[in-house]
Amino acid sequence: MDTQITTKFKINKSAKEVFEAIVDPVEIGNFWFSSSSERWEQGRMITLKYDEYGAEGIIHVLEVDPNKNIVFTWGAEHDEETVVTITLNELDKMSTTIEVCESGFKKEDPELVNKMVGQKGGWVYMLSCLKSYLENDVNNLRASMLN
Amino acid sequence: MDTQITTKFKINKSAKEVFEAIVDPVEIGNFWFSSSSERWEQGRMITLKYDEYGAEGIIHVLEVDPNKNIVFTWGAEHDEETVVTITLNELDKMSTTIEVCESGFKKEDPELVNKMVGQKGGWVYMLSCLKSYLENDVNNLRASMLN
Repeated sequence: MDTQITTKFKINKSAKEVFEAIVDPVEIGNFWFSSSSERWEQGRMITLKYDEYGAEGIIHVLEVDPNKNIVFTWGAEHDEETVVTITLNELDKMSTTIEVCESGFKKEDPELVNKMVGQKGGWVYMLSCLKSYLENDVNNLRASMLN
Repeated sequence: MDTQITTKFKINKSAKEVFEAIVDPVEIGNFWFSSSSERWEQGRMITLKYDEYGAEGIIHVLEVDPNKNIVFTWGAEHDEETVVTITLNELDKMSTTIEVCESGFKKEDPELVNKMVGQKGGWVYMLSCLKSYLENDVNNLRASMLN
């Protein structure tokens, strides 16, 4: 069984605008986490908070290639580390594809399928919020998925 | 393994507005399918088209309780019928929870996990588009998830 999950969207903005929305701690609050402790740069450990869900997590940024890709790990503090690779591909000045691939789920985990299904939902939600924010200035789509 | 997938969102609109967006063939084009052959009513077979993905499907509407719930089956033409139950719960005149539960995936299907992951992504996307449309009049969030 393939335990990677991949989600890809087309966003009608430049790669730079999509990239900045993710790495800039002020921008991120408009579509994803409520706060990010600092700008995402290679080698940094960043604390992300999601006030509405009472959640907090640490990501370790492994690679950043501006306007092209971002690789980080998260979940290490709960012994369920996965690797997230975000790849941007600028089609033209006004459209970019963004692909998010999360890998490293443990095949022996009895909760594997639930986790994969949950993470898929999370990534589709994040990318929907990102697109709605960048293209339409909507910053209130986030934080409304309920458990 | 639980093969149901459930997705729940809070939308800041009345249950009637959320309900109408789904059952009305004009409304649906703003956030989900490109067309729906007729209004969703109990017992009807409805043809849904998704022009951007070159896709078409038939749903069989089993139950409709206005502003409360909608139950339908789909996928019968591909011998992979599942049951979708949409439940609305109006919290007050300006907020409603919408829960979508899809069940009936075949446990012996070698593609079971991929299908569940894919459907989860689809429902999160549909509900994100629905919320963005109803709350912010955004009708261009749909049809941008790529395979």
